[in-house]
Formats: sequence, C-alpha cells, structure tokens
Amino acid sequence: MILPEPTLRRLPWYLAHLKLMGDSGAEYVSSTQIAAATNVDASQVAKDLSFIGISGKTRVGYEVKSLAAALEDFLGFTSTHNACIFGVGSLGGALLQDTGLEQYGMKLVAGFDVRKDMIGRRINGIPIYDVADFAKVQREKKINIGILTVPVERAQATADLMTAGGIKAIWNFTPYRIRVAKGIVVQNTSIYAHLAVMFNRLNELNRDAE
Amino acid sequence: MILPEPTLRRLPWYLAHLKLMGDSGAEYVSSTQIAAATNVDASQVAKDLSFIGISGKTRVGYEVKSLAAALEDFLGFTSTHNACIFGVGSLGGALLQDTGLEQYGMKLVAGFDVRKDMIGRRINGIPIYDVADFAKVQREKKINIGILTVPVERAQATADLMTAGGIKAIWNFTPYRIRVAKGIVVQNTSIYAHLAVMFNRLNELNRDAE
Repeated sequence: MILPEPTLRRLPWYLAHLKLMGDSGAEYVSSTQIAAATNVDASQVAKDLSFIGISGKTRVGYEVKSLAAALEDFLGFTSTHNACIFGVGSLGGALLQDTGLEQYGMKLVAGFDVRKDMIGRRINGIPIYDVADFAKVQREKKINIGILTVPVERAQATADLMTAGGIKAIWNFTPYRIRVAKGIVVQNTSIYAHLAVMFNRLNELNRDAE
Repeated sequence: MILPEPTLRRLPWYLAHLKLMGDSGAEYVSSTQIAAATNVDASQVAKDLSFIGISGKTRVGYEVKSLAAALEDFLGFTSTHNACIFGVGSLGGALLQDTGLEQYGMKLVAGFDVRKDMIGRRINGIPIYDVADFAKVQREKKINIGILTVPVERAQATADLMTAGGIKAIWNFTPYRIRVAKGIVVQNTSIYAHLAVMFNRLNELNRDAE
C-alpha cells in the first residue's frame, strides 16, 4: 500500500519510541502515550497505525514488542536491499562508513567513481569500481538502489546511467533536481538544504535578540 | 526575515542550477528557465526570489552570477558557523569526514563522545572531547550549533546538555523527537525515515509489476 509520505516519516518516530519503551520493560502502550512522546496528535497516531493494519485493544492499547516488530517489518528495515553509491567523494565516502544504514535494511555492496585513483580501492570493505563497469557489476550483484553523491554538474548524467543500468530507486543527496522516467523512485535528501533552513532560523533568532 | 520552509528548501535547487549555468557561460536567466530546470512553477520561482528582495528585469531576466551570489549569501553558505557533533559513532564519524559541510558554511570544530577510547583522538583533524567537558569547550570555541548523532536512548538527555551548555540550534539526525525550550532551533534530518519512504515506494513498484 502506498502510504502518504507524512505518515511514512512519522512511523520511524513511533518505532524509536517503542524500542526505548521495550528496552525499559514496558509491555503495553496507548496511542496517547506514543502521541505525547512524539509530539503528534493521538488520533493521528491511531490513524497512522491503522494504515499498516494494526489496531490497539481497548484499555490496554498496543503490545510494545509486537507493534515495534510490525513497524520495523512494514518500514522495510528487516529486509536487505542491496545498494551502491555513485560518487565516492566526501559525502559518498562518509556514507560508505555509516554502518547504521545496514541496520535499517540497506546494504552497500559497491561504490562507483570516475577518478582513477579511487577505482580498485575499498572503503569499509566495500569495493570501488569504475563507473564504466556499472552495468556488469549491477547484473552480478543485483543492485536496485543507487545513492547519488556526485558533483551537481554530473547529477543528471549519472542518474541517466544508473537507470539505464537497472537502478529502480535513486536516493539523491545532491541539491540538483534530477529527472527520471516514470516508475523510477527518487528520494531527495539534500542535507545542505536543511542547513539553509537551520541557518535562517538561527539568524532570525539572533536578530530578535538584538 | 523568516521564510517559509518550502521556499528555503527550493532556494538551494535554484542555486545549484544557477551555478551550472554560470559555469557554462550563461549571463542571464529567466524565472521560466529556472522553473523548467527545477520542476517548480515559474510564478513560484519569481515569488521565492522576491522574498529575498531580488526581482528580474523585463525581457532579460536575472543576472546569473549576481543572483547566485545573492542566494548563497542569503542562505548563509558564505558565513562560517562553528558546530560540534555529539556522538562520534558511525554517522557522526562519517559527518566529521564530510568536507562538503564546510563549503556550505558549517565548520565542525569539535566532536563529543562518552566512550573513553574515542576521547583525545582526532577525526579528519577535528578533536574528540569527553562530553563532560562540553561547557568548557563551548566557551573556548564559541559553538552555537550542535549535531545530534547519539543513540536514540541518549537523544533527549544529550539535547538537554547541549542547550544547557549554550547551543542555540540542534541538527537532529536521530529518529527521536527531542523537546527543547522555546527559542532553540531544531532541524530534523532523519535519513533513515527517508529510507523508509524509498523502500515503501520501491515495494509498491514491485507489487505493480507482478
């Protein structure tokens, strides 16, 4: 089922809270408690959870561990999705070292770059290939998710190459708005755009204080 | 001026496109051209740019280089904001190695951790301190932005410690919804929540194809 994006973004907040509760030994939780902890309206919490086919019991609420397990499974964090990184520069190289991604179901199996001095190396055990070998490596490793961390001027051409080679979903970390064919998933995560939002709010705060 | 968040998120897209145009030698650009390249409505582009006090000239449009410079300045990418990272684990350690942040105006000057084997080390030249020394280091280095990459169960306590020590803006990479006093800026960037959105869209696509 295609869930609304705001729901999909809230579910990991609930999951994080449920895991904390589970660790502290709690057995049951109400939507009101989840709502209070995550700063979301209680009726919204119940609605979000009903999307994934889970409803609480009257009086006791939800069972913490089974709800956490169902959420984790629904969110795709318990399956393994093979992914590769295009552009092993500063951010790409950093992501290759983030073992957190694998805990959430994304296994990085390859990096691709155009720079000769990078090709043939390994970062965190993950081999770096020549971008020209992508189609071959994709077939061997069955990769359907590509992470885009190339310089802006190569973003579109690299996205084209990724989809031509069989990539079904692109996680775009560049600030460039790539265009893809219908049926290809694009998730934009421009961390530098988030920086801009934060700087703006911070400046406004300083101005108010003056 | 406090800009609407959607505008602040679109401005870096325009900037990325303007830089590409500038590199290719273009002198002028119309809002229609920016709109087409970034997949935004042309009237929205003009409105977004008017927020920052820039309007195009009839017929010729905007001057590419001066618009890019104005945007970069407005977004805070040309100033230097000292920041530190709390939780030098996998993601925190990775961010310390991302030199891209500094290009966008964020200079990482310290890392903090509770693990004794991390304290006293340097990552990418940036010193890692004991979290207990935060207040002292904050005074010395005048840090007002803190990046939160601790485990979920320490997120709230660490956020409290950050703000008590003088942090004005928290860039929260954890999936935990931290609570802060009024006047403290929080920017949530839960990259794992973006993963959930991408997995969901991808699964839906596979289901359609079956």
